[in-house]
Parts: sequence; C-alpha cells; structure tokens
Amino acid sequence: MSLVQRTRFENADCPVARSLDVIGDWWSLLIVRDAFEGARRFTDFQKRLGMSKGILAARLRTLVARGVLETAPASDGSAYQEYALTERGRGLFPVVVALRQWGEDHCFAPSEPHSVLVDSDTGRPVGRLEVRSADGRRLTVADTVVRKVVRSAQADRFPQRRGVGRLARRDQ
Amino acid sequence: MSLVQRTRFENADCPVARSLDVIGDWWSLLIVRDAFEGARRFTDFQKRLGMSKGILAARLRTLVARGVLETAPASDGSAYQEYALTERGRGLFPVVVALRQWGEDHCFAPSEPHSVLVDSDTGRPVGRLEVRSADGRRLTVADTVVRKVVRSAQADRFPQRRGVGRLARRDQ
Repeated sequence: MSLVQRTRFENADCPVARSLDVIGDWWSLLIVRDAFEGARRFTDFQKRLGMSKGILAARLRTLVARGVLETAPASDGSAYQEYALTERGRGLFPVVVALRQWGEDHCFAPSEPHSVLVDSDTGRPVGRLEVRSADGRRLTVADTVVRKVVRSAQADRFPQRRGVGRLARRDQ
Repeated sequence: MSLVQRTRFENADCPVARSLDVIGDWWSLLIVRDAFEGARRFTDFQKRLGMSKGILAARLRTLVARGVLETAPASDGSAYQEYALTERGRGLFPVVVALRQWGEDHCFAPSEPHSVLVDSDTGRPVGRLEVRSADGRRLTVADTVVRKVVRSAQADRFPQRRGVGRLARRDQ
C-alpha cells in the first residue's frame, strides 16, 4: 500500500478501516492465528506459514511495534526469544473466529475436511458468533445502520492529526 | 501474492486461511463494508474509498467471480449496473463487525470520535460479539483448541485437488 492510502486508513473515522490498517495484511493475521494456536518461536511460525525468514521477521517486528505481540524470554529457560500475544492481540480472537466460521460455511465442499475450533473442556465445536442488539435480539445487516461522525466545517478545514494515527505512523 | 502462496491458501485445511484467500485483500473487505452500508453503484464505492477506477473495477470483478457480490439492474430503473451482496457476501457481516469492535477498543484514543454500528430500531450500539461454547459459556482463547485434519499417508502422497480451490483458481 502506498503512504497516501495508509495515512487515510490511520485517520479513518471507521473502526473497520483502522483495524485493517493496524493489522497490516493477511500474513499478519495468519501469524496472529498461529499465536492463538500456540506458536511462540520464530521457527514455529516459519514452519506453519512457510514464508521467507525476511518477510516473517518484518511482520513480527511490525506486530510487536503495533502492540499486537510482545517479545518474551523463552518459557523453557533457553536463549530463544518468544512472541506472545498482548491484550490487544488477544482481542483479535473474535476476528479470527469470524473468519473461520465464514470459511467453514462458504469455502469448503460439504464433504471436505477442515480444522475445527473446539471447546477444550467438551471437545465440541464453539458456537456461532452472532450479531445481537444490546437487549439480545439477533440482528442482520438490514437491522443495523452505521452512525457516521459529524464534523463541523471548521474541523474539516483544519483537520487534526489524531493520536492513534501518529502512533501507527511511527511504527512504519 | 505469488501463485504458490495462493495455491496453498486455497487448499488449506484452515478455514481462516481459505477465507482470507477468497476475500482477497483489505480493499475487498472495505468494498464489502461499504456494500453493508448501502453502496450499490461503482460511483458510490469510488466516492467512499477514493481508489482508482481500475483497481476498484478489478476488485469488484473478483468479488463477483467469487460469489461475494452479484450484479443487478439499477434499483431506480436507470441504465446503471448495481452490485449487491450475495448470501455468501452477507455472511461476512460478523467478520466486519468483529473488525469494527476491535478497532473501537484498540485503535482510537478514548475521546476520539468514530462511526458506530447501531440497531436501527433503538439507535443503540449493537452488542459485543462473544465466542461461546455450544452450551453458551463465554470462551477465551485459552478455553479452546484447534482440532487439525488428520490425513493418511496415502492421501498425502496423492493429494486431491479440492472443489473450492479449483473454483477460486478459475476466477483469477
């Protein structure tokens, strides 16, 4: 992505656009997926993703700079560095589960095997993510509307750089 | 992405990887977001996303080929072509909502305004997406495990091309 595109996403009023901007790209989200599945070391991620060392190192650096992963000493006391999800990173769990459930519904033939996310207590697949109203009714897209940010003409003429945008920029 | 990388994602056992492969890229997901918000015409998408006509046309074509959008005659009877979400496309609603909620939590300063997805009946923000067990308990990542596909050595030696992978390939 060009710098112009990044800059717009960083400052977007839309949380969807900002999320995509912070996460970075598909590879980064697959790194997060693998961290959810227990990968901690550079070699774990490399084996699972089969990506080049240079690209993986760059993605890991960016995810650390953006506060999605943090480095930690090896859990077995060895000299290896490990990567652990931060609270911000763990917050991506519903994003990865939503992608998984859509993939299960729409990207496999009926008889085709796929990995399954299960409740470790019962071994049963986790429930469906559902968009619900504050009082618990199930909502479809048609039941919702996006309330946009309204800015005064003054604010539009002198737009302020915003905190998160600057932070994200500094990490490049 | 190179052909080798695409091929692996298409045939991945992991629904997360297949989803990412079918959706394509961030731009495609922002087009889907805009379709959820009511955009239907080429010019609607172009105004909202500010991307070049060529790139937008290519992304729309791909989303139609992958069954996420479909073309439809203009709703006002004019000669314009419109783009509508298919059932497969509408299924991405929880993915977009999950990204939105993560962005709200982690990508805005506390006082910073952002757009809000509200229940159109009540005007109240939609509820949080929650990962729950089949019997309704809230689950964190630590409560879950991914059950991988186990393949026989025979199947590994003569891997079959799978249906969805072929479809996605044909759309390139």
